[in-house]
Amino acid sequence: MAYSFGSDEYFMNEAFKQAEIAFEEGEVPVGAVVVCNNKIVAKAHNQTERLNDSTAHAEILALTSAFNYLGAKYLPDCTLFVTLEPCTMCAGALNWSQIGKVVYGATDPKRGYKRLVTKKEQVLHPKTEIITGVLEKQCGDLVSAFFKKLR
Amino acid sequence: MAYSFGSDEYFMNEAFKQAEIAFEEGEVPVGAVVVCNNKIVAKAHNQTERLNDSTAHAEILALTSAFNYLGAKYLPDCTLFVTLEPCTMCAGALNWSQIGKVVYGATDPKRGYKRLVTKKEQVLHPKTEIITGVLEKQCGDLVSAFFKKLR
Repeated sequence: MAYSFGSDEYFMNEAFKQAEIAFEEGEVPVGAVVVCNNKIVAKAHNQTERLNDSTAHAEILALTSAFNYLGAKYLPDCTLFVTLEPCTMCAGALNWSQIGKVVYGATDPKRGYKRLVTKKEQVLHPKTEIITGVLEKQCGDLVSAFFKKLR
Repeated sequence: MAYSFGSDEYFMNEAFKQAEIAFEEGEVPVGAVVVCNNKIVAKAHNQTERLNDSTAHAEILALTSAFNYLGAKYLPDCTLFVTLEPCTMCAGALNWSQIGKVVYGATDPKRGYKRLVTKKEQVLHPKTEIITGVLEKQCGDLVSAFFKKLR
């Protein structure tokens, strides 16, 4: 399916392509891209198996790649698109990055950061805009298919 | 001051030496070591400035180093010693690592992971033992001295 360039669906589909690469490599299929001025400045997929590092999530790898590419340790003008709701670690990393916007696809009730959000406490940066549910079914179905295959 | 080898104070003092390196380099002075069978398998200090990466905290760098050294992506038999209470991101990373024990020095009421812990929700892994307040004053004073110098 073709999405119009620059739309949330377009960039989420690019993140989804990263998730598909993870799937093919036997990794939990999560993908992310970082976008700045409508340009993708970083792409990554989950690599916990390949790097033998349980913290090598797509978001962390994409952030580090974006910091390197832009030569900046804060990303207020960037958006991160990720196929699955970020976990607590990744949300904490996104907070430190002061990223302008986070767009995610499927929700993750068990591991997602939202379970820790209270009236008093946030996990993402208070200035970060959050958009959810973009290509939600497609992103979630890939994760379900992966775990179904594992069993 | 000399601490008896193998004690929590001994290893925390090794983490403190890492924090002192960070201080000298103009980084927020936090240091960490990972210990396995009484042997230090990883040492790191905060490098957010040097690496231009707002997520390059001592704990994250120490974990990745330990994963690489041990060739394992889970660390149930290891202990992480860190001079300051881990932030949400680092606590999330420690959760994924399934580390056996976390020992920290000073508390961090503003950024520390503890503010998100509720009766229902934990941030560290449920099997991770937590010990606090080891060399607390020494660790906290170094952070205070750093921010005092900045102002």
